[in-house]
This record gives sequence, structure tokens and C-alpha cells, in this order.
Amino acid sequence: MTRLALPLGSWGGEQIIHARHAKVPDHIAGALMAALRAGEQVRGATSPNPPVGAGVFDQDGQVISVGGTQPAGGPHAEVVALAAAGEHARGAEMVVTLEPCNHHGRTGPCSEAIKRAGIQRVWFCQKDPGEAEGGGAQRLRDAGVEVRAIELPVLALEPWLAAQRLQRPYVVGKVAQTIDGFVAAHDGSSKWITGSAARQFSHDVRANVDAIWVGTGTVLADNPRLTARGENGRDLPHQPQPVVVGTRPLPAELALKAPWRFSNIDLAMQTSWQRGHRHVLVEGGPGLLTSMLRSDLVDELHIYTAPKLLGAGKKCVDMLGESIDAAKTFEMSRVQMLQPDTCTVLKRKNHDDVHRNC
Amino acid sequence: MTRLALPLGSWGGEQIIHARHAKVPDHIAGALMAALRAGEQVRGATSPNPPVGAGVFDQDGQVISVGGTQPAGGPHAEVVALAAAGEHARGAEMVVTLEPCNHHGRTGPCSEAIKRAGIQRVWFCQKDPGEAEGGGAQRLRDAGVEVRAIELPVLALEPWLAAQRLQRPYVVGKVAQTIDGFVAAHDGSSKWITGSAARQFSHDVRANVDAIWVGTGTVLADNPRLTARGENGRDLPHQPQPVVVGTRPLPAELALKAPWRFSNIDLAMQTSWQRGHRHVLVEGGPGLLTSMLRSDLVDELHIYTAPKLLGAGKKCVDMLGESIDAAKTFEMSRVQMLQPDTCTVLKRKNHDDVHRNC
Repeated sequence: MTRLALPLGSWGGEQIIHARHAKVPDHIAGALMAALRAGEQVRGATSPNPPVGAGVFDQDGQVISVGGTQPAGGPHAEVVALAAAGEHARGAEMVVTLEPCNHHGRTGPCSEAIKRAGIQRVWFCQKDPGEAEGGGAQRLRDAGVEVRAIELPVLALEPWLAAQRLQRPYVVGKVAQTIDGFVAAHDGSSKWITGSAARQFSHDVRANVDAIWVGTGTVLADNPRLTARGENGRDLPHQPQPVVVGTRPLPAELALKAPWRFSNIDLAMQTSWQRGHRHVLVEGGPGLLTSMLRSDLVDELHIYTAPKLLGAGKKCVDMLGESIDAAKTFEMSRVQMLQPDTCTVLKRKNHDDVHRNC
Repeated sequence: MTRLALPLGSWGGEQIIHARHAKVPDHIAGALMAALRAGEQVRGATSPNPPVGAGVFDQDGQVISVGGTQPAGGPHAEVVALAAAGEHARGAEMVVTLEPCNHHGRTGPCSEAIKRAGIQRVWFCQKDPGEAEGGGAQRLRDAGVEVRAIELPVLALEPWLAAQRLQRPYVVGKVAQTIDGFVAAHDGSSKWITGSAARQFSHDVRANVDAIWVGTGTVLADNPRLTARGENGRDLPHQPQPVVVGTRPLPAELALKAPWRFSNIDLAMQTSWQRGHRHVLVEGGPGLLTSMLRSDLVDELHIYTAPKLLGAGKKCVDMLGESIDAAKTFEMSRVQMLQPDTCTVLKRKNHDDVHRNC
């Protein structure tokens, strides 16, 4: 047995190491790391399916093949890895970041594919919470495959797992502000509050979500593109769906490409969920973010903060509480240095989430 | 030679490791660490002298004695360490966090004491910038003692070194706020914005400074004690001098013990410097902090931030700039996790300071 400091996943290019070291048999380590990375790499492109990674390996710990979940309708991570392994899968072991599904959806159940390929033993990190999908481990056991749960947190799966519990998309709110809390100066100017590292980081986050939500006010004021761009300014491979919430009329010519439009938050939430969104980013403005905070619909906040003080200006949200006891309180999750700025990640308080100490 | 990841110093109980690893001969390491620690331990109690640490050691690296600077009028670190070493100092080496002084002040020059004790070789981290005090290294060399500069940053000496350059006390501003930048709610309530870890941390900072400055408005509103207290609520050994700046009349009965009173910032700054203050903490209110920011008198900011949003309320400072280009911009130095809160340390931009990447 090895006690490994395992990366939960990467975040803006930085590996997040979990405080709890995982105790795993030596020969799993290489394939487990490869499976975690494969899951990371498909983030944003798999909804309504989870971004899962899988690895096939032999008893000496040699990695035979690796796979990540393909876009909806395509094969799951296990099937990708098994196809790549071919006949080498027979008698080998497999590690998957999520319990293999037992579900006849657009693709056959993974549990059956694993059995058919001749995999001898399956290790998985997180249990599948779905009623239809769950039970894959039991089905494998019934078919004579040995199954072991590692119980390891997987950063890439967090939003999807929370969305399954909530039965609505996992919502991340984004704010870029001065350290004294202004998103724009008194005269409305706000260009380059934060620097290039923060900007690139926020584009990487955009590439990992299903949609970006904004209010009609923001569209009217800024006419944003809301695309996920790389350091060279070019579009990244995965682009989030733009979603506009609100009733104000918009001009026909917009920088936004084919936005979905909803008159209110409830409708946006329900329809997005039905259409397969599991992870959305709310980029403002203050009206939309305030409404979502008041309705307790914000699961995570990314507060990009520049080391600047303005003393006066425009705020990220409107009044939430008259007294300090009425403040909306989150949990401090982590702070990412993005020189000269920071990004503070706050998470919903009392989130039923094993990773809250990451 | 050893490449050591040396702690610059501790900060709220946490060691701050400098990114640049120091290259030092093996036999110095133990005494260097002990000298850095000794300097840390006397922070806040040595002004107008710097909080220096010194260690005497033999050629095998065995630490013979350690000393820290005593309160003004008492012996410097070198003299404390030499006295503790006694005859064992003869032929030994010494490491000091600051260049030994060459100054006939209230105590004799350390360079002379070192020579007299028979120290063979002296290592020091930072050069003494003073005209009267400097030149100690040359004097030692002239007397036949070998002297070597390590050029290692020393966290405990930073405020004192900056104050010498500025010829005024080094100023730290303190703010405790919600993450959207409010120091109190709309109704004025502000109790327990931040939690116990942040509170204790701010008391430890109080114990490391010469004075705490507040405006008359804060005294009238809160009648604060401004003492440095430990986790048990009892006073810590070193207490900062309370200083009240402003012209509003105050009641005779105050919680503050024997405050110094000044009608304006310039007078407070000059008189504090003359009376020996080198490191002061400005705890508010918004009027005083705004004036000091406008006059470019704030060298460092400690922004304690709670993971809460209010959306509206009272701000830490008044208007500093009409447009984003006019924002007061600092450098992001570090972020200390103080669960559930953080403390962000900002430093003056373009500070002539070798440690700005710590």
C-alpha cells in the first residue's frame, strides 16, 4: 500500500492536492493519476454526462490505456479506454473516477462493456448517485467482476455531483472587483480592473462550464461575446452556451452567438437542466447576481480581486441584508494567486460536499 | 555549501519561506535559524532600535548562544549573545540579522564588543543603512575580524529598514470587511464580521507594532481599548501606544490608556518618529485611513476579509478616485488563510524593497 498525495484535479493549470492522502495499492497509482487527468481534460464538454476518466492497467501497474467521457451521445470514459486497450484488457484491472453506469441510455451500460472485455477488477473513486445510472458496481459483482471503492474526491466531478443532488445546474457566480469591493469606478470605467493572469484564468473557467448567464442589462451595457479564449485571443475548443435572462428588449445585432433567452431565473434554470446543462457561470450584472443570491441559487463564487482601492463606485450586488447577521455567508474554499490579483473561491455553506476542506 | 529554504520569519505563527533559497556554508545554518527566531521574538519591543537577532557558534556548527535586541537603552542582540557565550566566544563565529552597529549611543558600539570578545568571523544578513550606525562591518575588518554578508531578507526587519529609508514610521493600515467591501452593515452593525482566528491574528500584529492610530470619530463611536490581547483575553507582554489623531473633543473617561493626541497626521508622524516609533498600525476609521491613503502614507494594508456579502453598508475608505485609472494601486504580497476568513497583505507599489516577492 502506498500513501499518495493525490491531485484532486487541476484548476487554472495548478494542481489541487487534497489534504487527505489516499491509501491505495502501489500498482494503481499510475492509472489513477492518468484517469484523473483524463477526466479533467473533458470538463465542460460532456454534459449532461459527468466528465469521467478511466484507465486500464496490468498487475505490475503498467498503464495499458486511458479514456475520458466523450460529448453526449458518444462513448463513456470506460468504453473509450477499453476500445484503446483491445485484447490487452482481458485479465487486466481498471480504475474509473466514477462508478461505472448501469444505464441503457444512448450508449449501452458501461458495466456490461467492462464484463465483456474481460476486466478482472474495477476500482472507482466516487459513487454514482443516479437512480437509473447507479447500481453498476453491484451488477459487475453479480457478473463476477471484483469491485473496490477508493472513496477519493474528484475535483472535476464536483459540479456534476452537486447538480445531481440539487436536480438543477450547479451555479458559479463571478465577480471582478477592487479589494474594497467595486466592480467599476464612479464614472463607470472598469476596463482592466484585474490583470492578464486573472483574465486568462476566467477564460479557462468559461471553457469548463456548459453556459454563461448574463442579465439583459449587461448585454445592453457591454455587448459582450462571452466566449472562452486562449492567451493568443483565439477561441478555445469548448465554448459555453450564452444565456440571457431578463425581459428588456435587445437589439437584433449582438456580439453574442445564438444566445438562449429566458424571461426569468426559474425558467432559465428548468429549461437549462432539461436541455442538459449541469454547470453554469453567472457573469452578471448586479441585478441577476443579486436575485440569484437572494433565492439561494449560488453554489460557488469566484471573486477576482485587484490590489486597488477606489473608495466609491459601482457594486457587484445590491442590498442583501440590513444588518450584519443578515449577510449571505459562504465558506472560504481557496485563494488562487493570479499576480497581481487573486481569485477567492467561496462555496455554499453546509454544502453536502466531502471536499469542502480542499 | 548548503542550499537552504530559509524562513524569512514567522507571521501569525506561520513561517514565511522565501522563494530564493539561500546558499550558506553548512555550519552556519543552525545559528542563522536561531538568530532569525530571536529577532522575531523581540519585534515590537525594540524601537527606535531594530529587532535584531544574533547567534554565536563554533566551527562544527554547534550553537553556543543566542540573543535578541533588548528594549531601548538595553543591550543590542550581539551583546546579549556575547554575554551568554562568555569565554566560549573566543575564536568562535557569529551570525547577526543586521550589520553590527558602529555607534556610540546609549550602549557602546557592537563592533567593539565583538572584537573584544575574540569573535573570529561575523556573518550578517542585512546592511545597516544608518549614517551614524553603519560602517560596523568595515570597523570590524579594520580590527582584523573577518566579515561576510549573506544578503538574506529578514521579515522582522522590513518595517524598520523601510522606516529608516522614509525617515518616518512605517505605516500599516488595517481593515476588516465582508468580501464585497463593507466594514459594517447598513444599520451600523459590525460585530464579528471576521471570526476568532482573524481576531487573534490582528492582536498578534498589534503586539508587534509601536503604536495604534485611530481617528477621534472611532474613539467617539466605539471607545476601543486598542490593547494587544491573547487567546485567553489577557494582555500580551508588549502593548502598543494608543495614538488619537483629530480635533474633535473627547470625553475625559476613555477605555484607552494614556493616549497620545495629535490634531493632524503630519504632527502625529513627526512627533511619533522623534519619540522613537518606527512601525505603526492605523485601525481606522474611514476618515483617517482615507486621508493617509490620499497623502500616500500607507506602506502596507492588512485586509481581513470574511466570506460574506452584504450588498450595501459602510465602507472602509471614502472616495479615492473618480475613474478606475485613479484607483490607489498596491502590490499583492500574500494571503493568509484564517478560517473562515483571510488576511490579504498589500504593500506599497514600487517599494524599494528586496522582499516584494515573498
